[in-house]
Amino acid sequence: MTKKVGVAILGLGVVGGGTYQTLVEHHDFYLETQQVDISVEMVLDKNLERLKDLGVPQEIIAGSIEEVLANPNVDIVVETIGGIGVAKAFVTAALRDGKTVVTSNKELICKFSHELEKIARRNRCGLYYEASCVGGVPIIRTLLDGVQANKIQSMMGIVNGTTNYILTKMTYEGADYADALKEAQRLGYAEANPTADVDGFDSMYKLSILSSMAFHTKIPYTKIFREGISQIDVKDIAFGRELGYTLKLLAIGKNTDKGIEVRVHPTLIPNAHPLASVNDSFNAVYLTGDAVDDVMLYGRGAGALPTASAVVSDVIYAATHSDVKYSTFKNTATADSAVKFVSDFSSAYYIRVSAEDRAGVLAKISGIFGKYGISIVELAQKGDAVGGKVPLIIITHKTSENSVKRAVEKINAAGVGEVQSVIRVEK
Amino acid sequence: MTKKVGVAILGLGVVGGGTYQTLVEHHDFYLETQQVDISVEMVLDKNLERLKDLGVPQEIIAGSIEEVLANPNVDIVVETIGGIGVAKAFVTAALRDGKTVVTSNKELICKFSHELEKIARRNRCGLYYEASCVGGVPIIRTLLDGVQANKIQSMMGIVNGTTNYILTKMTYEGADYADALKEAQRLGYAEANPTADVDGFDSMYKLSILSSMAFHTKIPYTKIFREGISQIDVKDIAFGRELGYTLKLLAIGKNTDKGIEVRVHPTLIPNAHPLASVNDSFNAVYLTGDAVDDVMLYGRGAGALPTASAVVSDVIYAATHSDVKYSTFKNTATADSAVKFVSDFSSAYYIRVSAEDRAGVLAKISGIFGKYGISIVELAQKGDAVGGKVPLIIITHKTSENSVKRAVEKINAAGVGEVQSVIRVEK
Repeated sequence: MTKKVGVAILGLGVVGGGTYQTLVEHHDFYLETQQVDISVEMVLDKNLERLKDLGVPQEIIAGSIEEVLANPNVDIVVETIGGIGVAKAFVTAALRDGKTVVTSNKELICKFSHELEKIARRNRCGLYYEASCVGGVPIIRTLLDGVQANKIQSMMGIVNGTTNYILTKMTYEGADYADALKEAQRLGYAEANPTADVDGFDSMYKLSILSSMAFHTKIPYTKIFREGISQIDVKDIAFGRELGYTLKLLAIGKNTDKGIEVRVHPTLIPNAHPLASVNDSFNAVYLTGDAVDDVMLYGRGAGALPTASAVVSDVIYAATHSDVKYSTFKNTATADSAVKFVSDFSSAYYIRVSAEDRAGVLAKISGIFGKYGISIVELAQKGDAVGGKVPLIIITHKTSENSVKRAVEKINAAGVGEVQSVIRVEK
Repeated sequence: MTKKVGVAILGLGVVGGGTYQTLVEHHDFYLETQQVDISVEMVLDKNLERLKDLGVPQEIIAGSIEEVLANPNVDIVVETIGGIGVAKAFVTAALRDGKTVVTSNKELICKFSHELEKIARRNRCGLYYEASCVGGVPIIRTLLDGVQANKIQSMMGIVNGTTNYILTKMTYEGADYADALKEAQRLGYAEANPTADVDGFDSMYKLSILSSMAFHTKIPYTKIFREGISQIDVKDIAFGRELGYTLKLLAIGKNTDKGIEVRVHPTLIPNAHPLASVNDSFNAVYLTGDAVDDVMLYGRGAGALPTASAVVSDVIYAATHSDVKYSTFKNTATADSAVKFVSDFSSAYYIRVSAEDRAGVLAKISGIFGKYGISIVELAQKGDAVGGKVPLIIITHKTSENSVKRAVEKINAAGVGEVQSVIRVEK
């Protein structure tokens, strides 16, 4: 009854190294519990030093992708190189040779799953990418095989560990953005060039993949509104807390009557919301389906072994299921033209104005909001006047993004103060 | 490419009714997103009134299980009757006829999966039971196909909505147990005879199923230590909160070097633990694996539609996968004799003593703990003396259950006070 499966690993960095280690150390465990005899048949990495550090035996080190694909014992190719250069070429070649591919590469899947899946289908092999989103958390398996009975109405996710670590530092230790980023870099949570994380690109790629699966239609990342955390002032985090809200970088997808709404931006959520207490480098995805109601999956969104858990779970899945389930939508390069996307979305807002400290200013500001049909839930002056200015915090009811933009311009032009922060609020 | 699948539903109560409704309303959605044409071919229920309320057409109402099984259009039988009488007979008959079974019946799976799975394997049909544990939360799919790369080290779950609702009321509204239970009964969260929930039987069945899957070995419910919530004094919940702990009824499974430890009991957990903020009728399971580290799944553990989500997701899974994956352990009637179970488990403890308010009592009590090798983390007198007695709260370090039992007996016999509560603490 035992099935023999050979694996090749391309790229033995953090995730690939963790995958190698997990497969080797758990060989007997998988044999016993899953009736599969999984062996690492080949590895490919230019950096021989790290292969040595991992204790990879010389005889399984391949010299080229051709050597890997020519090996008849390799059934499954694990791609943990990252990026869309060589990784794409290797994955394409593997699928063309009929090898099942397991990848942790979010950018590759986000940008090219339509192309890669087509090759996989044609060659009757699998394409698995649980590890591309939210590390060890089985969110893709859940969307495919756990809550597929539902029309998913919305998803909100904390899907980037770096930014969540930075925001946690800012929230609970009052660190400002620059210091929190430096600490994250020191700990290896953030890259020297942190753009991909802090500007929301990483979250955007993941939202593209997850919302496509959740809403059963291709959602290209180009349709996603994106705003990062680098402009966040720690003052607004503190004021938000006082008003009962926690700031998180959320990836939000909604499937509404008006169309699909997809956006990544800093968001204030009520302190009692389960996502508000997801801290440090932990990630979580909060789904709402029409039958299941609310479901949340929480766990480590990055790291060698947590991500390896997702890679190896995909390897075992591929090894123990004879049929392949591809994405549940028509996987094309672009969005289905019949699907409407909402660009002028609705949200509640937190707005901080550095207002002139004189009579009539408040009336003027609320008048401008009123003029644009924006109703105010809460308006509070925070602290005392400094240099004739006083911080004024406004929380609005749900209103349109465009109305807020216009009101902000008007306030800035009215000589009553300056709008310093505009942060969306989800309830 | 579209596959036609016929379903029969046995028992159209809360979950069966929700399943009927979901399958009928989502027919076109599943056709479009899953390429399966799922039709409800037959239903079986003695209560014709509720079939009428659900709008079931006359022609699909079966008169007997024989009629259901004789229908060649029925591929999958959904059992949502509950209990182990007629449900067991019907499920057995369906599997013998080679029909795949999807069930929400925790007692049936807990007590008889060994027998039913054997019949299923023999007849090459599926046996699915996601809905038996934690309603709509895809915990079984996650254990089978999402985190199967891991050696699961522990699981802690809030797996019963009724008791979690009662404890939430006691914690946040200061209600006493009797009143909170009455309110739960009024809302339909608790049965007139609440024993199955409040005494932990329901949690015990679920822990048996989930820990068997997590630890890849049969864990009969008879091996599970069980203590319910009916003896919980609201005072201890309040004292616990003051010390930084929240009380939950936890189902705990641990796979340690010393053996497997499985228990259901009221437990104090730190307020910052993700399980501490799982409130009302929500459920959650917190897993720790050797690669993935901590993962939590959260959602509605009961209710018509959330549970139907699990049933229907199983139906779709069965319809879209040609091979069946059974439990990942040797499914026998009893535990594997090679597996050791830990009965004298270790835990930290919260102990409340109604102590005599006089000199020397404290020294005496701490002396007794010392004698049994129990070290104290915290000892606090709460409030003033009433009638010469004062409440004394003790939090211990990790120690053995048996040592605590002996120390408690000794204190009660020493004429220095009476131990009124002993609650286990998990950190």
